Amino acid sequence: MHIKITGSGSYIPTEIVTNADFAKHVFLNDDGTPFPLPNETITEKFHDITGIQERRYVTDNLLTSDIATIASKKALEDAGIDPETLDYIIFAHNFGNVKKDAIQTDILPSLATRVKFDLRIKNPKCVAYDMLFGCPGWVEGVIQAQAFIKAGMAKKCLVIGAETLSRVVDLHDRDSMIYSDGAGATIVEATEEDGGILAHETATFTYDEAYYLYFGNSFNKDHDPDVRYIKMNGRKIYEFALNNVPKAMASCLEKSGISINEVKKVLIHQANEKMDEAIIQRFYKIYKQTPPEGVMPMSIHKLGNSSVATVPTLYDLIVNEKLDNQKLNKGDVIIFASVGSGMNINAIVYRY
Amino acid sequence: MHIKITGSGSYIPTEIVTNADFAKHVFLNDDGTPFPLPNETITEKFHDITGIQERRYVTDNLLTSDIATIASKKALEDAGIDPETLDYIIFAHNFGNVKKDAIQTDILPSLATRVKFDLRIKNPKCVAYDMLFGCPGWVEGVIQAQAFIKAGMAKKCLVIGAETLSRVVDLHDRDSMIYSDGAGATIVEATEEDGGILAHETATFTYDEAYYLYFGNSFNKDHDPDVRYIKMNGRKIYEFALNNVPKAMASCLEKSGISINEVKKVLIHQANEKMDEAIIQRFYKIYKQTPPEGVMPMSIHKLGNSSVATVPTLYDLIVNEKLDNQKLNKGDVIIFASVGSGMNINAIVYRY
Repeated sequence: MHIKITGSGSYIPTEIVTNADFAKHVFLNDDGTPFPLPNETITEKFHDITGIQERRYVTDNLLTSDIATIASKKALEDAGIDPETLDYIIFAHNFGNVKKDAIQTDILPSLATRVKFDLRIKNPKCVAYDMLFGCPGWVEGVIQAQAFIKAGMAKKCLVIGAETLSRVVDLHDRDSMIYSDGAGATIVEATEEDGGILAHETATFTYDEAYYLYFGNSFNKDHDPDVRYIKMNGRKIYEFALNNVPKAMASCLEKSGISINEVKKVLIHQANEKMDEAIIQRFYKIYKQTPPEGVMPMSIHKLGNSSVATVPTLYDLIVNEKLDNQKLNKGDVIIFASVGSGMNINAIVYRY
Repeated sequence: MHIKITGSGSYIPTEIVTNADFAKHVFLNDDGTPFPLPNETITEKFHDITGIQERRYVTDNLLTSDIATIASKKALEDAGIDPETLDYIIFAHNFGNVKKDAIQTDILPSLATRVKFDLRIKNPKCVAYDMLFGCPGWVEGVIQAQAFIKAGMAKKCLVIGAETLSRVVDLHDRDSMIYSDGAGATIVEATEEDGGILAHETATFTYDEAYYLYFGNSFNKDHDPDVRYIKMNGRKIYEFALNNVPKAMASCLEKSGISINEVKKVLIHQANEKMDEAIIQRFYKIYKQTPPEGVMPMSIHKLGNSSVATVPTLYDLIVNEKLDNQKLNKGDVIIFASVGSGMNINAIVYRY
């Protein structure tokens, strides 16, 4: 038995927000003092580091679970399976449904329940739950689906990563420019076909790292202290990711028994282009090599960081040949890798 | 190999809130009109149906993850294992950390990350994630731990259910009297010892049932419509539970191959005494029997409904012989059963 992704779908929100759209934002330091550079310089520097030119936001009427349903319908259609045959719906997110201009997270019922409801699935044996695991949530959802299949508890799982970070950003924080909205969904199935998941690796670092990403107050000290937003210690995350992600990827590759020379693509979480480039350099350095041209497809320039949605969306764009000069051929080995709040890191070595 | 609960711990909050403490609440109908009975009559009727005399609330300084850590420490000590040997921390909740008098859910980082941080666990191979599955979250966490162990991905898992429902109640809603706070934790391990999990059953009903429990506005129409609380359609849940929980328990018992006559205890989610009594009657009726005296230990009278914390806390109280006339002997067969938001139902047949 092999465990493969047999279908994928994504939803790319329609509202395009460019770096220029941040021109009138009042950016502050974390102590509330004014940031001592004009916004044009800020966004230029931001672009140089992160690679982000644009990001996507959902329209006011949409919630995280809504866009997850759209992506899920596409994944089900792509896999060509009857939704009633699903054994699990695993929904990775980190903020639940947050309505436009509201500050409350709505996770009752779970977003997986809402997707199952919206898909009009009747089968009660299709178990729907939400999973919170930071940005690596979708990759971890695939690993959990694999566990259920291996344990004989499932044959077909819908694994979703969806988030609307635009609803939880502090507009006075320059990091707000990183975040975007999106949804990616995949069908993970037991199959007799060759390939699929060859190895996985997961790690949770909390001893020093638990609060590198956190829910914190606005940099504007006049704001209500009971209202909090997504916040991060970017420098520490950068160092942490560089020290730990390449090692986790290498450990996963070793478990799989696959040679580095066989790796065709690395689909890595898109949080920061410079960081991703440094990670891939360091990963290949372990094997005394330099990364081959085009080995790391990037979607960050136009899509920003949509958290859990990033990796499944990237995968969906590539298999549908919607990313310039990127495609997958049957038998290609790829590595999924992600890092985020937890701090969690995970990787999957996968044969397409 | 068997999979057993090798340790348990719970935290019962210190603030006792009696039915009399609701004497000055202004209860309203869902349309905002005054409820046409004096509070004394309301609480009397409430007690007659639910069996709840008191419930427990955490002190103002405590959060859901804090009480989860206390319960987890006890469970680790009870199992006598080194926290560094844990492969998973699975934390079931439904509202995250909500500070006293704040309305925001804080789930960044995940509560499992916070518990791992508070336990000062260094081992990055201990994977920590949160799971949202309504009140049946702890039972489902045990089922997920079982999957990881069966799939060869884990040997030792900490499974937590913790909630502070006192932070999300609408004081104008009579249902607010049901909810309480609490934390239960267990160590689930692969072992050569006899017994443990014999069978499990899970079902998610969403087609008509998805929004029986939901996040909704206060019955007081003057309240901010962007502030929402835990809400339920009690009558529909009652009917739903009666129609489906006994069947799920019977299906699970059949899978286990155990006779109804061997069942010593049914540890069922504590949401409403009358409902639980009707469920157990109907369950035994399937076997043309009546429930044996004391087969269904109840904690609801003094502890209310603490959601995901209820079943593990009940288990912990019984194994520590802190519940009148209730104890477990080695080899006893018990059934864990739960129902809640999703709508989710699950059951485990377990040999102690």
